[in-house]
Amino acid sequence: MLPDNAEDFRTIWLCTDDESVVQVIDQRLLPHDYCIHELRSWQDGVVAIADMCVRGAPLIGATAAWSLYLASLQTSDPEAEIHTAAIALQQTRPTAINLRWAIKRVLTAISAASSGEDLAALTRLEAENICNEDVEISRGIGEQGLRLIEEIAVEKNNAPVNILTHCNAGSLAAVNWGTATAPIYFAHQKGIDVHVWVDETRPRNQGSQLTAWELAANQVPHTLIVDNAGGHLMQHEMVDLVITGTDRTTRCGDVANKIGTYLKALAAVDNNIPFYVALPSTTIDWGRRDGIVEIPIEERDPAEVTDIFGIRDGKKFCVRTAAIDTPVSNYAFDVTPARLITGLITERGICDASEGGLLSLFPEMRNE
Amino acid sequence: MLPDNAEDFRTIWLCTDDESVVQVIDQRLLPHDYCIHELRSWQDGVVAIADMCVRGAPLIGATAAWSLYLASLQTSDPEAEIHTAAIALQQTRPTAINLRWAIKRVLTAISAASSGEDLAALTRLEAENICNEDVEISRGIGEQGLRLIEEIAVEKNNAPVNILTHCNAGSLAAVNWGTATAPIYFAHQKGIDVHVWVDETRPRNQGSQLTAWELAANQVPHTLIVDNAGGHLMQHEMVDLVITGTDRTTRCGDVANKIGTYLKALAAVDNNIPFYVALPSTTIDWGRRDGIVEIPIEERDPAEVTDIFGIRDGKKFCVRTAAIDTPVSNYAFDVTPARLITGLITERGICDASEGGLLSLFPEMRNE
Repeated sequence: MLPDNAEDFRTIWLCTDDESVVQVIDQRLLPHDYCIHELRSWQDGVVAIADMCVRGAPLIGATAAWSLYLASLQTSDPEAEIHTAAIALQQTRPTAINLRWAIKRVLTAISAASSGEDLAALTRLEAENICNEDVEISRGIGEQGLRLIEEIAVEKNNAPVNILTHCNAGSLAAVNWGTATAPIYFAHQKGIDVHVWVDETRPRNQGSQLTAWELAANQVPHTLIVDNAGGHLMQHEMVDLVITGTDRTTRCGDVANKIGTYLKALAAVDNNIPFYVALPSTTIDWGRRDGIVEIPIEERDPAEVTDIFGIRDGKKFCVRTAAIDTPVSNYAFDVTPARLITGLITERGICDASEGGLLSLFPEMRNE
Repeated sequence: MLPDNAEDFRTIWLCTDDESVVQVIDQRLLPHDYCIHELRSWQDGVVAIADMCVRGAPLIGATAAWSLYLASLQTSDPEAEIHTAAIALQQTRPTAINLRWAIKRVLTAISAASSGEDLAALTRLEAENICNEDVEISRGIGEQGLRLIEEIAVEKNNAPVNILTHCNAGSLAAVNWGTATAPIYFAHQKGIDVHVWVDETRPRNQGSQLTAWELAANQVPHTLIVDNAGGHLMQHEMVDLVITGTDRTTRCGDVANKIGTYLKALAAVDNNIPFYVALPSTTIDWGRRDGIVEIPIEERDPAEVTDIFGIRDGKKFCVRTAAIDTPVSNYAFDVTPARLITGLITERGICDASEGGLLSLFPEMRNE
């Protein structure tokens, strides 16, 4: 969310002038350019997700839902087109569960529709609901997580609360407020002195390019660090709290998140620093238990590691850092075992990272 | 060391045509250009160390020694000039202990000289000795560490031994063979199937730009990864052994090394993977015990984090990744506590990371 319109800020919306166009912020160009990117077909949605024009588990889900709406407009047989689009969307990115959740939700709504119902109106409503609910989920996480920050502020006699975050689980990763950032924004708005250590987040630099950008836009004090630095800061009592997002959390509380999250959790445990994961319930995979064994980990283009996007003399491009023939591997996520996680901040409350903890907040999932 | 001249390769040498010039490889331009950089004064040596034209604890020490030789040539009062140079060199980089060790060694040799002795000849001899001894130290580390790799190769029935390393503790960081790489080169030369996971090593990218370059030059199989990836690889049994270098190791075995080393050690312990540090005895700080409290950690220019060096269309330059006004912190090293380290590979043997372990190999230091 941005300061002038915190409540109304959205990362995805239906174009007001043309209801066959969905608009998003092109996150590939930040922080150097703030550009609106238009999705005019479900295929545009597929490319936007795969190419990380949009990213972040909740926003990927929302984009998938809006892409299905675009599919519903495109043909004389909208239902068939929606199913074709669903399959293609499903294959864009394997790790974030919200993608599957959102697609399933739209398809379920469609399959429940009576014949002759306006599928475009139905998918649009579902996409709008998913977005509006996501904002409320972020708000819930913000309110719950705020309590943690308030407690630390009291313990520290209102000295700045230093929060480390990895990747971007911010407004830009969701529809508004974000997940990991929601407690931070709420604390900042309440006048609590917070300072955020922003992990650069190689290889895509979501920290230096997205999190730092949105924290600056919201005037939240922050400092960019390389991913390697967090352990040192924790050893020297420069971190009070770690909050990250998640792309998929198992029933037992194992968290798949941006590669490197696991290393920060290890350092937090080693230094007795609370490590929390901001977890919208839409990101829980109730059907899996062991994250390390069961969650598919995306491997992405090696060029993401070797070719780094930036700006020079007002021009934006990539430079290649490594030699041209250097072999590269590029895993996009890792899994932080539940045992390393102090707690999960959900929209319904904070719980242990365990099946019991999650079921205490979501008892309706006991038999799922 | 490079394949055609493994034994003779050097990272620093006296120019054969002009004995008032010391030559080094300009490591700021690798892997895109292999250029020789000339040091014509001790001030050139100061700049080369501070600006990381040369880097790596052993090579910093060697460069300091050669810089003192250059100081001895420059004036009618060489002794005063050497002392002036020593003070300036000392201040270039605070963490690597070899810098202090090499300077002290040269100054001690000078102070022991009888009046009228040729100080240039004396400092030159000392610099040459430091370099030659460093090669032998690397060779010793290589032979000792080779045993570890051989054991793993046997356990794995000669399947590839996967070794993860952080930063560049390679040939380029020393005079030849390197420290962490010496066992790898020795194993490779012996026909053992080794594969190296090369951490990119933000912010200066010594992994992607130096380690990958020298492993390729020596035809050692390797794969570049981001610093965030090591934990994931370890969770999935894709790493058999971690070997890093060190910039300073305390009497009790705490290791200051490139920022992020600590995170890899935590992951190794969590996954029961041996974590070794290749430790030339010149890098031991016998006067310190608690690394986290006592070792000064260098903070470097924030631009190292935000401005990334690379190549595009044959031109080499930096691009800025973050927004222009993003606050940055840039700690260059962290300390890995001895408790996380499986063992120290020294030129005299492998020992526990503890005072007892180190004294068992270096009993002459008991009362230091």
